[in-house]
Amino acid sequence: MFAKTPDPPYYAVIFSSQRTAGENGYGVMAERMFELAPEQPGYLGVESARDVDGFGITVSFWNSLEALARWKRNSEHHAAQEQGKSRWYEHYRIRVSKVERVYAKSN
Amino acid sequence: MFAKTPDPPYYAVIFSSQRTAGENGYGVMAERMFELAPEQPGYLGVESARDVDGFGITVSFWNSLEALARWKRNSEHHAAQEQGKSRWYEHYRIRVSKVERVYAKSN
Repeated sequence: MFAKTPDPPYYAVIFSSQRTAGENGYGVMAERMFELAPEQPGYLGVESARDVDGFGITVSFWNSLEALARWKRNSEHHAAQEQGKSRWYEHYRIRVSKVERVYAKSN
Repeated sequence: MFAKTPDPPYYAVIFSSQRTAGENGYGVMAERMFELAPEQPGYLGVESARDVDGFGITVSFWNSLEALARWKRNSEHHAAQEQGKSRWYEHYRIRVSKVERVYAKSN
């Protein structure tokens, strides 16, 4: 569940979203995106949690803004983004950020 | 659930964590931290989701690294951090990042 990211700096895309009611093919798309993203150059990992009320945060990690821009333009991902806007998400916010420091506890 | 953050730049603290089994006073502490953080100078908001397996992501937003450093040193928060390490979290990672761009869908 924890992404094995390298030492910073790298980029984090913080995707916060509220799901619409109903499944509408969301699960299959989400699974496909979790498969597809790791095939992209510059992908560093992903972490994701969604609560019982359908509010979720997914953070994906990238080694450069160029890698992120390529992923945004990926045709399958682009189609998913369009469906996301129209069907799957009531509301979302995407914040592109640069990770500068990391602290951890590992057991 | 969505934080009303200003236009970037600002800072996002991405706190990913896996809860230990058992409650152990976690809920009271978490609620108190959600009360206390908004009283701090430089606080901009928080978003949080935890899934049924106890994996969660909480992102808090701050207007400067100084504001964030002050919050880290806050005495009640500091005590909560210590309990977090010893009792509430199996594993966690804290990534301090600078938000550069934001995209949103609002309904």
